[in-house]
Amino acid sequence: MTEEAFRFSSTVKVRWRDVDALGHVNNAVYFTYLEQARVDYLRELGLATDDPQKVSFILAQASCQFKSPIKLGERVTVYARVSELGNSSFSFDYRMTGGDGRLIAVARSVQVCYDYARQKPVPIPEAWRQIVTAYEPGL
Amino acid sequence: MTEEAFRFSSTVKVRWRDVDALGHVNNAVYFTYLEQARVDYLRELGLATDDPQKVSFILAQASCQFKSPIKLGERVTVYARVSELGNSSFSFDYRMTGGDGRLIAVARSVQVCYDYARQKPVPIPEAWRQIVTAYEPGL
Amino acid sequence: MTEEAFRFSSTVKVRWRDVDALGHVNNAVYFTYLEQARVDYLRELGLATDDPQKVSFILAQASCQFKSPIKLGERVTVYARVSELGNSSFSFDYRMTGGDGRLIAVARSVQVCYDYARQKPVPIPEAWRQIVTAYEPGL
Amino acid sequence: MTEEAFRFSSTVKVRWRDVDALGHVNNAVYFTYLEQARVDYLRELGLATDDPQKVSFILAQASCQFKSPIKLGERVTVYARVSELGNSSFSFDYRMTGGDGRLIAVARSVQVCYDYARQKPVPIPEAWRQIVTAYEPGL
Repeated sequence: MTEEAFRFSSTVKVRWRDVDALGHVNNAVYFTYLEQARVDYLRELGLATDDPQKVSFILAQASCQFKSPIKLGERVTVYARVSELGNSSFSFDYRMTGGDGRLIAVARSVQVCYDYARQKPVPIPEAWRQIVTAYEPGL
Repeated sequence: MTEEAFRFSSTVKVRWRDVDALGHVNNAVYFTYLEQARVDYLRELGLATDDPQKVSFILAQASCQFKSPIKLGERVTVYARVSELGNSSFSFDYRMTGGDGRLIAVARSVQVCYDYARQKPVPIPEAWRQIVTAYEPGL
Repeated sequence: MTEEAFRFSSTVKVRWRDVDALGHVNNAVYFTYLEQARVDYLRELGLATDDPQKVSFILAQASCQFKSPIKLGERVTVYARVSELGNSSFSFDYRMTGGDGRLIAVARSVQVCYDYARQKPVPIPEAWRQIVTAYEPGL
Repeated sequence: MTEEAFRFSSTVKVRWRDVDALGHVNNAVYFTYLEQARVDYLRELGLATDDPQKVSFILAQASCQFKSPIKLGERVTVYARVSELGNSSFSFDYRMTGGDGRLIAVARSVQVCYDYARQKPVPIPEAWRQIVTAYEPGL
């Protein structure tokens, strides 16, 4: 899977605060980059609002393979796409590259649509499903 | 796999800053909790120093299954153990529970012993291996 | 002003993630420690709830003098007290010390009671004022 | 003091992780934004390297007045300038504005040139002083 598999990408400006005592971007911060790409993706598709109460899914799983360290001053590109749509869950695939094009990480997350009031999973809204399916030809 | 499988645990005091706009501990922060448990584990076994330059492994993979949200004011316990020892890589398994004993997350990370100067993986030092094997009867 | 001026203190376990590329706790993280002491203080006095919506003041100012770096593995004590009570604003004074008793930082913050719905400052609630005044003999 | 007083500015893309349970960018994160502007400023003037070991000053003080909350999705501009040059210390002044031009914060930090090896303040290097003075006409 290369960058061509992705229609969407988002760039991250690495912050000094992102770097840890070993001089590289800390591993937990990769998940912040992934999360931001997710937020940006949903905003791009008109599926996110800035109102946190409207975010109606929860993160069920996240995993990342760290391929290359990120240095201070780098501009990182995070490619993201919805890679699976289930009944109430869906997955994102990610690919992170550095300013020089090298592969930094590949990652995946699984989200579940959730009704916070009733505290249980709910089906992916049909309108949401159609917008994502239209955007992702491979789904 | 339950808590009994772990000899080691470390507690985390949840910070206000750990919580995001949805009112729960942010997903990336779970990886900070796991990292801290790893650091605490190695310190407990005398394998860590406070000198970042002496930490001689890199993180190759991390994954987490989020089972229950963490609320503000909670005290979280992170159970950690070395679950596999390869030639140059080793894995940690984790289990996080809340103050009420409920399961919060299960997670895993893979580390690779690394020579930063030569920029290549190196075998796990024999002394390190012996200390960990002595501590973890299941290895 | 020494530790004797404070009735309240809260301890912080320094996390690996708190440390930056220079090997010391990052300056922005000091403000997270101060914030946590503030939250802990209010909880101690029964003035905080875990419901973020109930927090009815905003931070107007924060300042910190950095006296000594914090190292990994240290346990930091943050002393906090309400040092001034105005009509709608109040200030906190802080003092941070290390495990060896050395002074790490002195700091101050100013908060303003705020009605989020009407988006304007409101007087400090009388019940709140009485509880704090009873706790802080110097006010 | 308005934006005209500043030659330099740096933009920040607000991250979802920057926002806290109250739905605004957390106060400690403002100091991360200020720090990043400082790093960007020094890089712009050729005074920073990506090697953390070469950063030869410590932060002595930081203060911030919070004028307006920052919302998710905003692009923040941080104006920064060296506002005072002493013998071994120097100060930065900052001004943060939102995408709509409103004032978000004004801030100040004091740094001290420091010899980490000898653990004592040292005079600002003359070459450094000349570069900054040439850049900041008001100094």
